[in-house]
Amino acid sequence: MPKLNENYQNLKESYLFSEIAHRVGAYTAAHPDKEVIRLGIGDVTLPLGSMAIRGLHSGVDAMADPGTFKGYGPEQGYLFLRNAISGYYARNGVCVDPEDIFISDGAKSDTGNISELFDADNIILIPDPVYPVYVDSNLMSGKTITYMSGNAENQFLPMPDRHIHADIIYLCSPNNPTGAVYNKSQLKEWVDYALENEAVILFDSAYEAFICDPGLPRSIYAVEGAKKCAVEFCSLSKTAGFTGTRCGYTVVPRELKFKCSDGRELSLHAMWNRRQSTKFNGTSYIIQKGAKAVFSPEGMAQCQENIRYYQENARLIADTLARKNIPFFGGIHSPYIWFECPDGMESWQFFDYLLGHAQIVGTPGAGFGQNGRCYFRLTAFGSHENTKKAMERFEALF
Amino acid sequence: MPKLNENYQNLKESYLFSEIAHRVGAYTAAHPDKEVIRLGIGDVTLPLGSMAIRGLHSGVDAMADPGTFKGYGPEQGYLFLRNAISGYYARNGVCVDPEDIFISDGAKSDTGNISELFDADNIILIPDPVYPVYVDSNLMSGKTITYMSGNAENQFLPMPDRHIHADIIYLCSPNNPTGAVYNKSQLKEWVDYALENEAVILFDSAYEAFICDPGLPRSIYAVEGAKKCAVEFCSLSKTAGFTGTRCGYTVVPRELKFKCSDGRELSLHAMWNRRQSTKFNGTSYIIQKGAKAVFSPEGMAQCQENIRYYQENARLIADTLARKNIPFFGGIHSPYIWFECPDGMESWQFFDYLLGHAQIVGTPGAGFGQNGRCYFRLTAFGSHENTKKAMERFEALF
Repeated sequence: MPKLNENYQNLKESYLFSEIAHRVGAYTAAHPDKEVIRLGIGDVTLPLGSMAIRGLHSGVDAMADPGTFKGYGPEQGYLFLRNAISGYYARNGVCVDPEDIFISDGAKSDTGNISELFDADNIILIPDPVYPVYVDSNLMSGKTITYMSGNAENQFLPMPDRHIHADIIYLCSPNNPTGAVYNKSQLKEWVDYALENEAVILFDSAYEAFICDPGLPRSIYAVEGAKKCAVEFCSLSKTAGFTGTRCGYTVVPRELKFKCSDGRELSLHAMWNRRQSTKFNGTSYIIQKGAKAVFSPEGMAQCQENIRYYQENARLIADTLARKNIPFFGGIHSPYIWFECPDGMESWQFFDYLLGHAQIVGTPGAGFGQNGRCYFRLTAFGSHENTKKAMERFEALF
Repeated sequence: MPKLNENYQNLKESYLFSEIAHRVGAYTAAHPDKEVIRLGIGDVTLPLGSMAIRGLHSGVDAMADPGTFKGYGPEQGYLFLRNAISGYYARNGVCVDPEDIFISDGAKSDTGNISELFDADNIILIPDPVYPVYVDSNLMSGKTITYMSGNAENQFLPMPDRHIHADIIYLCSPNNPTGAVYNKSQLKEWVDYALENEAVILFDSAYEAFICDPGLPRSIYAVEGAKKCAVEFCSLSKTAGFTGTRCGYTVVPRELKFKCSDGRELSLHAMWNRRQSTKFNGTSYIIQKGAKAVFSPEGMAQCQENIRYYQENARLIADTLARKNIPFFGGIHSPYIWFECPDGMESWQFFDYLLGHAQIVGTPGAGFGQNGRCYFRLTAFGSHENTKKAMERFEALF
């Protein structure tokens, strides 16, 4: 009989969004006349820009013609897209070699799969609260996690603790769910710490396109030395509305090398390349053509227009909370607004309260870790009209 | 410093196709006047049919409109496609519940990732020769492999050895690279063996669409009891020419349960669902729309037309080998023709000989395992014209 990977039994049931759906369903069944506004899920709602659409159609057309048909592509992605992403980094002031970029079907796959490259015997730091994939993918392979506390005191931006010698560090900035963003000197502290400890930083920058202050780093490679200690994950999901279209990328610099037990240096780039060549067959050519179009000047302008639309919603939510003197995080360089539940409520209690009294659906902070127990997340991905209406109800309620 | 997964050092360099490219490059540089014909790579060459193209375009169009735009989809795939695949199974006489089907970006990802569900302590049977992903993905996670010998004596179809108690069994039929196909009574023997040993069969049916004898099983679920012991992987790569478009599917029946160490039964379906929900974010909506169109009556007819084109090439190669009294396998229910290298040559030696004397590029059997050392693979994915020309040269040479 196959011995199963029993580490799976250490996973908590991933019931967050199904529980939300269940509670919303029960409420609407009992109150069919009430209009519920959903500001809960971290998913984009605006359609793709015309440049991306044109790129995707051209990819489809290529598949119809014997002269342009594409079979298996490179597992690492087509160079036309790796070059376009390298150019995007350059426009943001960061130099990334196209050869170090791996195209994938999304940052979720890559942030989950990267854990395969490491042994179970490592000290792994993961912030709490945070996007649950880092925790779950490590638990699945039997690894032990050391949580770093994110809290109001440190603005939900945990910093290195020199008393702990870490091997692997997950960072997410702008953070999901808190919207908090590391500034350059904070990131430098992390890079310095990683270099001193010979640790590796796994940096998730999926929300970088929401950063509007040019002084804030959109990539960890804005910090000197980062290529010797950091892998970066990014995605077109939030940059270009690709959540359902699926395209991400991961930078694994060739400078990133670690000694193995016999003293030889191993390249993490070579290992990731081997992983992807063995268990992945490249991202669809069609999708890569769409992604390339996103990085054209006109494509970028269209993406920025959509992001500005969401940022306007975020400002609306943030302004409402500020007027009500409810302390919050995020909402400026992020589509997420994270705040302490009023009146000492716990997050699921507040979820029910907000749904029952204002017909607003948000996300209970408890779904992102222990430290989210009394926090709540609202997102900027609704329509202007609904966000405005929701905030009017919110304002009337408190 | 991160402790790396040193199992990666047990992998052989995956140099097969790069070594082929290197040798072909050197030959063409030295003989610029010679016309080289490539019958080596297992990749389709005919463009997608108009139904698939129409489906893909409609998926792209949906992304442009706020009313039809799709964000995150279900990690398991859209029900419209799972239903279409269930219908495809039904037309081939097999009942598969749409709820048991998981859509992915391809069978390579799934056959590689499935290994995560199992502990390192298992007796794992893998045929030799075979598609290298099964071996490499198991070595990567520190597992030990027991090879089953495929050879001319057993027609490259290894059968159960009642003296070995296996836990996990990989089978690939029609086989890559040998083209050999299990008949129903042979598959029944495997299913019976698995049920007796409480083992799990991981069945790769990626080439099932090439089976032209309705008496041969295109799915392991054609055998009674298989849902209690088998996972099946399939793909649109060879069925519909999706090698560059990327869509596969995996069937994990809910009946498939195994006891864990504390005596409780765990569902492999639930575990795969958890794996996919954690480390995968669903296949692109656009690609799923194209895939759905493939399974329409007109879409299927177009796929069958392309497959017939390749089958005609396979017949041409098989007939040539038969006329030359070179024993071969495959070539009927498979795009692959597998034969012993003439004159006792080893496969790389024969590669050079065939390239040098007939300007034909094939694939050395050594790339697929020890037992391929003196065998050679030709594929039916070239054009009629080139295949015909190559076979004329072959005929003149031997």
